[in-house]
Amino acid sequence: MSKKKYKLSEIANYLGGEIFGDPSRIINNLSSLKEAQEGCLSFVYNKKFLKELNKSSASAILISSDLKEKCKKDCIVVDDPHFAYARLTKLFAEEVRETFLEDSSKDFSTSKDIQISKNVFIGQNVKIGKGVIISPGCFIGNNVQIGEESYLYPNVTIYSSTILGKKNIIHANSVLGSDGLGFAKKNDSWEKIEHLGKLLLSDDVEVGAACTIDRGSLGKTVLNSYVKLDNQVHIAHNCEIGKNTIIGAKTAIAGSTKIGEDCLIGGGCGIVDNITIENNVRINPMTYVTQSIKKSGIFSGGSIVLEHSKWLKHITIQKKQFDD
Amino acid sequence: MSKKKYKLSEIANYLGGEIFGDPSRIINNLSSLKEAQEGCLSFVYNKKFLKELNKSSASAILISSDLKEKCKKDCIVVDDPHFAYARLTKLFAEEVRETFLEDSSKDFSTSKDIQISKNVFIGQNVKIGKGVIISPGCFIGNNVQIGEESYLYPNVTIYSSTILGKKNIIHANSVLGSDGLGFAKKNDSWEKIEHLGKLLLSDDVEVGAACTIDRGSLGKTVLNSYVKLDNQVHIAHNCEIGKNTIIGAKTAIAGSTKIGEDCLIGGGCGIVDNITIENNVRINPMTYVTQSIKKSGIFSGGSIVLEHSKWLKHITIQKKQFDD
Amino acid sequence: MSKKKYKLSEIANYLGGEIFGDPSRIINNLSSLKEAQEGCLSFVYNKKFLKELNKSSASAILISSDLKEKCKKDCIVVDDPHFAYARLTKLFAEEVRETFLEDSSKDFSTSKDIQISKNVFIGQNVKIGKGVIISPGCFIGNNVQIGEESYLYPNVTIYSSTILGKKNIIHANSVLGSDGLGFAKKNDSWEKIEHLGKLLLSDDVEVGAACTIDRGSLGKTVLNSYVKLDNQVHIAHNCEIGKNTIIGAKTAIAGSTKIGEDCLIGGGCGIVDNITIENNVRINPMTYVTQSIKKSGIFSGGSIVLEHSKWLKHITIQKKQFDD
Repeated sequence: MSKKKYKLSEIANYLGGEIFGDPSRIINNLSSLKEAQEGCLSFVYNKKFLKELNKSSASAILISSDLKEKCKKDCIVVDDPHFAYARLTKLFAEEVRETFLEDSSKDFSTSKDIQISKNVFIGQNVKIGKGVIISPGCFIGNNVQIGEESYLYPNVTIYSSTILGKKNIIHANSVLGSDGLGFAKKNDSWEKIEHLGKLLLSDDVEVGAACTIDRGSLGKTVLNSYVKLDNQVHIAHNCEIGKNTIIGAKTAIAGSTKIGEDCLIGGGCGIVDNITIENNVRINPMTYVTQSIKKSGIFSGGSIVLEHSKWLKHITIQKKQFDD
Repeated sequence: MSKKKYKLSEIANYLGGEIFGDPSRIINNLSSLKEAQEGCLSFVYNKKFLKELNKSSASAILISSDLKEKCKKDCIVVDDPHFAYARLTKLFAEEVRETFLEDSSKDFSTSKDIQISKNVFIGQNVKIGKGVIISPGCFIGNNVQIGEESYLYPNVTIYSSTILGKKNIIHANSVLGSDGLGFAKKNDSWEKIEHLGKLLLSDDVEVGAACTIDRGSLGKTVLNSYVKLDNQVHIAHNCEIGKNTIIGAKTAIAGSTKIGEDCLIGGGCGIVDNITIENNVRINPMTYVTQSIKKSGIFSGGSIVLEHSKWLKHITIQKKQFDD
Repeated sequence: MSKKKYKLSEIANYLGGEIFGDPSRIINNLSSLKEAQEGCLSFVYNKKFLKELNKSSASAILISSDLKEKCKKDCIVVDDPHFAYARLTKLFAEEVRETFLEDSSKDFSTSKDIQISKNVFIGQNVKIGKGVIISPGCFIGNNVQIGEESYLYPNVTIYSSTILGKKNIIHANSVLGSDGLGFAKKNDSWEKIEHLGKLLLSDDVEVGAACTIDRGSLGKTVLNSYVKLDNQVHIAHNCEIGKNTIIGAKTAIAGSTKIGEDCLIGGGCGIVDNITIENNVRINPMTYVTQSIKKSGIFSGGSIVLEHSKWLKHITIQKKQFDD
């Protein structure tokens, strides 16, 4: 995804790390251990990663000195691989926060097949399919692709390199492809992890008003075909939402979680990161999902509404139980 | 609301359904059984609808063959009335997803009584009252009406045919009149239900920043006078919010729910669809309301905060109780 | 913060209240008792305020007749001090809801150090530091200050008088400096409390997409340096968020709450108004925090997810316990 290339020695230099292996090895991307291919640099933050380490196709590894001996690949030893990774995202970002001074919306205005309204900004190297309609106030970043017959309501923001399939409908004021929440501890403050990944929406996806869908940190966030989101849904970096799944208003899904096909997820739910929800799962509104759901079925979790005086009693009893 | 008219025979043809009754009967609108008037086509999805069926003023009914004998009106028998209704919404939509190429904001710029900022887009056939101020980046769809002395903060999106009363204040980046979440099952995917209804805001309504309020599917969504919404509130299709009611930040109200007058609804609540909340009800924050509240009073429901180790114990006990 | 000045007698006249003290005393601002300085008018709604009353540096007080005898300062006696205060906010507002007809974005376009994209609106008396990039569709209100090297993604709205430090990153469609929810009861309706306060973001703050952060009612809302917000976070008027604190997606913090430094607050939380959270507190997602947290540590509170049939049983048992 990046066009940048560095020798392992250049990277070690930038990070102030020590190389074990071939300093002239070419690194052209950052990646998780799982998704790494030839040319990728990956990272091991803690012991949990070791299981995947030697199965990975990564060409080199960022690792701490205490875990170094477990690594049979070329590696760079640094004090804090998470912080080093955060710093490296700056090196591999095509451009960290772009300038949008040149509008190419006029280039599309001659096409009879595409309708671009007033007050639209279109970046460089954008591909727009036949029959696409872009309403006023939309922003389309560099390298975005929008499939045939997609419709963007007003004031939608699409970050660079996001890819939309055919017949997508994106409601007003939604944001597609924003950075996920990612920071590495840096002494007494935070180092931002640049988000180098992408967001892919398949065909016939509908996104409600004022939704936010983050791009991948590395790799990608994916909404498969016929996914339908109500308003104010939030989907974090690297999630995958299965075909036909509908998600109710105000539900949030944290990073790297995978939701199956044909699920119905009620409004106001919170689903934690790094879990998997099976196909054909129905989750009622206001449910907090803290672990994977491994079989289809109906799940609930919201708390009960009571007259306030009864609720106080309920809460007081609960508290007493735990004040021992 | 639609200017379109069809013979019952044309509709049956489009749907591939069988007519019982007068094929030349004119249908000029879709409607729920309850709100139907002369000329309306309505629908019966399942037995629950039968109670309202023969009280309805609908001119004709979409119905499945097993319920057909209960219907004394003209009807079209189809395999799946919900799917058929979804398809019909396309026939009755004035325009399914409009093109916004012609801006009429200049037409208002000669008026001394109205102030339209830069980067505003105004559609066709819009009515704007004296003293209205529209800030930069706002979008006003076709056939919108904005009452006297209303103020729109920047980047607000108002979908077509939305009606705002006098002295409304709409904070930045809010979306008024968007489609509700509505899809009918279509083999292995979803058929979108076009939203033909409207959104009406009465006088002296204030809408916080980044709120979303959906239009009616059919019929309308209504916010009565002096309703005040905090930021990031979501109100779904066909809700009605009573006079003077205040709703805290991030609360979501699902479709067709009716909230009374003089209610105070805390932030972060989730209120399910198709229920009724009485006048003078106060609901504390983070409450999940699953059924109608039929008397005034104070209600609560949020769960308790505990030190994490105690919470784990609490959760573990609860889980055990249900693993039998 | 206001440039307006009135004699105490003018204010009493406007409110129809009775003066006790010097009618020629000059009042140049409204303030809470705690933050009041020479020249400020403050208010006492109920007995709770009395503790702070005579410690306050306010020059005069709005007070009801029953509490009048407790007040040793100059005062104006009115029937309803809260309603009177709401009315006074109109008197002290520089301008109640401004007109944005004159764009000064061109004034910045000659600078090589600042990059202002197309479709940006910049109000009057705005200060923008070197290296700032403002993306398409952003709105910058009057008297806003944006520190060096800050980056605004598209369609961000910044209300008047908001101050951003250096190296801030504001993601798309966020709203900074909006009014808080504030209304005083006025017979059978509501009187709006104008928000005269400000919003201050310190250096290196990052705000996710579609967030809303309100200005102070009086005084200010503050995000200290290295605060990082995920998407769709809501922060109400007069909150203060401590240095380095990270807040997950969709969390809402109600008015005047103070969060410490180095906190990690999960997504989907609701934190009530007027409480204090200690430094180094970690709150897990979906927690409802109803009282101050006075020691560092990890806290949780979300409810448990169950198969729906078990949940129903759980809920039924809970309900029975309280139906006595």
